[in-house]
Amino acid sequence: MRILLKDFTILPAAGGPKEHLSLLIEGGRISRIGAAAKLGDGPFDRVIEGRGKLVMPGLVNAHTHLPMVLFRGYADDLPLRQWLEEAIWPAERKLKPEEVYWAALLGIAELLHSGVTAFADMYFFMDEVARAVEESGIRAQLAYGMIASDAAQEERELAKGLELADRWHGAAGGRLQVALGPHAPYTCGRSLWQRATEAAQQRGLMLHTHLAETEAEVVESLQRHGQSPVEYLEGLGAFAAPMLAAHCVHLSERDIEILAEHGVHAVHNPTSNMKLGSGIAPVRRLLEAGVNVALGTDGAASNNDLDMWEELRLAALLAKVGGDPTALPAPEALSLATVNGARALGLNEAGKLEEGSTADLVILDLDRPHLVPQYDLVSNLVYAAHAADVETVLVAGEIVMEEREIKSFDEGEVKAKVREISRKYR
Amino acid sequence: MRILLKDFTILPAAGGPKEHLSLLIEGGRISRIGAAAKLGDGPFDRVIEGRGKLVMPGLVNAHTHLPMVLFRGYADDLPLRQWLEEAIWPAERKLKPEEVYWAALLGIAELLHSGVTAFADMYFFMDEVARAVEESGIRAQLAYGMIASDAAQEERELAKGLELADRWHGAAGGRLQVALGPHAPYTCGRSLWQRATEAAQQRGLMLHTHLAETEAEVVESLQRHGQSPVEYLEGLGAFAAPMLAAHCVHLSERDIEILAEHGVHAVHNPTSNMKLGSGIAPVRRLLEAGVNVALGTDGAASNNDLDMWEELRLAALLAKVGGDPTALPAPEALSLATVNGARALGLNEAGKLEEGSTADLVILDLDRPHLVPQYDLVSNLVYAAHAADVETVLVAGEIVMEEREIKSFDEGEVKAKVREISRKYR
Repeated sequence: MRILLKDFTILPAAGGPKEHLSLLIEGGRISRIGAAAKLGDGPFDRVIEGRGKLVMPGLVNAHTHLPMVLFRGYADDLPLRQWLEEAIWPAERKLKPEEVYWAALLGIAELLHSGVTAFADMYFFMDEVARAVEESGIRAQLAYGMIASDAAQEERELAKGLELADRWHGAAGGRLQVALGPHAPYTCGRSLWQRATEAAQQRGLMLHTHLAETEAEVVESLQRHGQSPVEYLEGLGAFAAPMLAAHCVHLSERDIEILAEHGVHAVHNPTSNMKLGSGIAPVRRLLEAGVNVALGTDGAASNNDLDMWEELRLAALLAKVGGDPTALPAPEALSLATVNGARALGLNEAGKLEEGSTADLVILDLDRPHLVPQYDLVSNLVYAAHAADVETVLVAGEIVMEEREIKSFDEGEVKAKVREISRKYR
Repeated sequence: MRILLKDFTILPAAGGPKEHLSLLIEGGRISRIGAAAKLGDGPFDRVIEGRGKLVMPGLVNAHTHLPMVLFRGYADDLPLRQWLEEAIWPAERKLKPEEVYWAALLGIAELLHSGVTAFADMYFFMDEVARAVEESGIRAQLAYGMIASDAAQEERELAKGLELADRWHGAAGGRLQVALGPHAPYTCGRSLWQRATEAAQQRGLMLHTHLAETEAEVVESLQRHGQSPVEYLEGLGAFAAPMLAAHCVHLSERDIEILAEHGVHAVHNPTSNMKLGSGIAPVRRLLEAGVNVALGTDGAASNNDLDMWEELRLAALLAKVGGDPTALPAPEALSLATVNGARALGLNEAGKLEEGSTADLVILDLDRPHLVPQYDLVSNLVYAAHAADVETVLVAGEIVMEEREIKSFDEGEVKAKVREISRKYR
């Protein structure tokens, strides 16, 4: 595909927005940026007109449990243990692979409509999620969430995680990556953590886990190990492989230093942490310490949507709630959802708009009342833009959604299927 | 107008949602609710089909400064005093009445697109805002924000507030109400407060003010008066008139009791309070004490949009951030934005969907990926719905927006005008 995005406002990797620029997309990359007349001759497979529109890097949802859209609104406003034990876990025990497939497609529809081009996922029946990713055209890093309390379970869980990598890592022309997913420091034993880390190193995979989400987790870790969850993982050598660590809410200064030293990617999940009453991640301190902080929605059961614009705004607002209105200004907040997210997933050529970058791009309609006037485009994006402003989405240079219509699958069929599946859980 | 809303999902005043119900709208009210066949014969001026759609009460934005959409993104992420003194106040000094008119229409466009049917406003050049309200078909309670530091200024400010009431209170078939707006306890002297309160009582008007927004305000009040801002206003007798009190962030237990005793309506402004680093209002404690708590966006300069769905979700999340995921559950959160908001503006027959209520209604498209599945409609509305899900808006039984198109004014012209005006402020 050779696509010309003609006469757009663009948000380049550095500096402010620029108007009346065009992008040539070839071979999945942005090959050239400039005045339309200077970008070479056609024929183009497609020309998309950009007057009144913005093209910017796609957003990256760096931590979710995609199939949990099936449990959106299934149970809310409950204490954490009751929510898990009486609602979510019993429902998940009834899940079938086919249901995960349709739920994953519904989640992808929601991601695309809100301008997400890549996501990191941890769940089970992950072959079904992989199939949905492959068919839909979105980019993803998938992990099977391993939980083991004895040696036999450890073997089975590790095998499942590795088989997922065997089958899917690098698939779909590289759109699909696999990470190994020891679920959390408290749900996997020392041996599983060490074996997963070694396997990740050998195979060049990332680790994806939950870390320091609740105060209770930290208290329990201190009791069991005499160490915080972060110190405990460091002691196990688990940071030897690149790691995506979701939540990172309850951290000591020493924990933050450790995360920075080892280049751990922290994923901020503001809505989920608020909704479950977990707390507020120290995003500013993490950034000051040099930690790469990305942004994620977590699963839809604790959010309850997959809207990265909400997370973006919330990250910027939540950083200020302690009393400092200068904390996490708009440009820094936006980078959590774009370039930092891409880095966190190991996509070092995505998340930015420059010649040579991966063409994971979204087109926004700027002619909306809530985006007028435009003194500061980045401020408007962070504090005023909505998911519904996203019109068109390109992943790896392919048009996956255009004018709000998903091209790669039938969204109506997916909604109908998930509605039907949801009857079982009522 | 005689309008039939046919075969909708509805959210009645009490109990859960009901499907396949129709509403007959006559004389600005919901005259009947039932099966379509039983709602009497046509002809109807309009029949709107509701399959896959929800009709619910319009949202009420109980505290904003509407024309400040002109300063959306004008300055962000600054310390409060610097933001006011170096950016907002100098810009406001340049404002012209005509600019306020166009900005107000832009704000109304944004409100209608997000399903707001009524708002309470405080600003200046309020005749222009009134003109925009009259023409647009939305409902509003308008106040001129009075600020006075000496006797001469007090006369002028009070006169402006009263003239606004003379000209506009009860206008536009009752859609327009006027309140008196002493800006805050610290910007109006004792005499102005007392005269405004007396005038409000005599004329049957409400008061609209800012109260206990920042910690600095409380500290200063304790120093000057030996009383908190709430105690100070009580001492002045200012609660003798019904009052809309925005923010209510920094309150003692005694303050909360006072607000409850006097039936003061508190307006929660979660985004603005977060963005300016003001703090978190004790919404749960206010509700437990019996205070009517409504919800507002504040002005777009400190938000930066007028999206009540975001405020709604944020109110529900912010109540939980202290560690209690059961605080402000979804149905209670929704009522802040509907029935409580209507009560706060003195609209006791709006904010609910029952026979005889005011037909201030919004229609939402439920066939969106982020609203599927639907185990719990209210949870989906609070935690997952977006402004862009709103399709159609009725105010006082008139269709003001239909299928996302505003009927009463030219939205394109308004956006173009505000873009043009904004050049002056660059």
